[in-house]
Amino acid sequence: MFVRKPENVNQQDMDIPGAKGVKMQLMIGRDDGAPTFSMRLFEVQPHGHTPLHSHNYEHEVMIVSGEGQVVGGTNGSTIRPIKQGDVVFMPPNETHQFRNTSNDTLKFMCLVPTHFDCGQGACEATPGS
Amino acid sequence: MFVRKPENVNQQDMDIPGAKGVKMQLMIGRDDGAPTFSMRLFEVQPHGHTPLHSHNYEHEVMIVSGEGQVVGGTNGSTIRPIKQGDVVFMPPNETHQFRNTSNDTLKFMCLVPTHFDCGQGACEATPGS
Repeated sequence: MFVRKPENVNQQDMDIPGAKGVKMQLMIGRDDGAPTFSMRLFEVQPHGHTPLHSHNYEHEVMIVSGEGQVVGGTNGSTIRPIKQGDVVFMPPNETHQFRNTSNDTLKFMCLVPTHFDCGQGACEATPGS
Repeated sequence: MFVRKPENVNQQDMDIPGAKGVKMQLMIGRDDGAPTFSMRLFEVQPHGHTPLHSHNYEHEVMIVSGEGQVVGGTNGSTIRPIKQGDVVFMPPNETHQFRNTSNDTLKFMCLVPTHFDCGQGACEATPGS
């Protein structure tokens, strides 16, 4: 086992189209031997957001601090407020986005499966896992 | 998608041998359609603990509040302090335990795969997932 502190983990810019003011720390991932799923800590700056996108694997999210909105549902048609302590389940294939609508940093844990598309031979490694 | 608040989720006593003062809330699980892994929120009362046990699937844990100790390693030979913000990876088959050594409640998120033992035909559903 290991115990890991966020202050000891490299913080990467989420440098993909549609992301604004987002940093990610891979807290537990494939390189640690995680067999099934990976844990990532995100920080979104005030009025920043993750990309509005979809993919065929799920997210499970816990809001660590701050507040904002999550977009999901059919074609991103649903918007819900989120704040510290809330949990979000984002099923595969929903168009989604996490938005910081406040003047404080929004932090959340976001977990993904380590692999997807396993139906036809070798799986794909999930990006950021 | 859904957004779920801990205050709206049923809290169950962890009523298994070796557990003391432990309650669990299944925040995201198989019944929600979680395809790969489940998120559970645990509360451990002061000087309570989870059972010292092992199983052939992993835990990924984030300490939400409070402090204590985690036991792991070969035959439970390693003890590490844990506190708010720390992340713990417990690989499959390590004997482990979470202990609240303080006078305040210890809360942590603990994630497990929804299924295990998938090598030989049908998988087993993970307890508490």
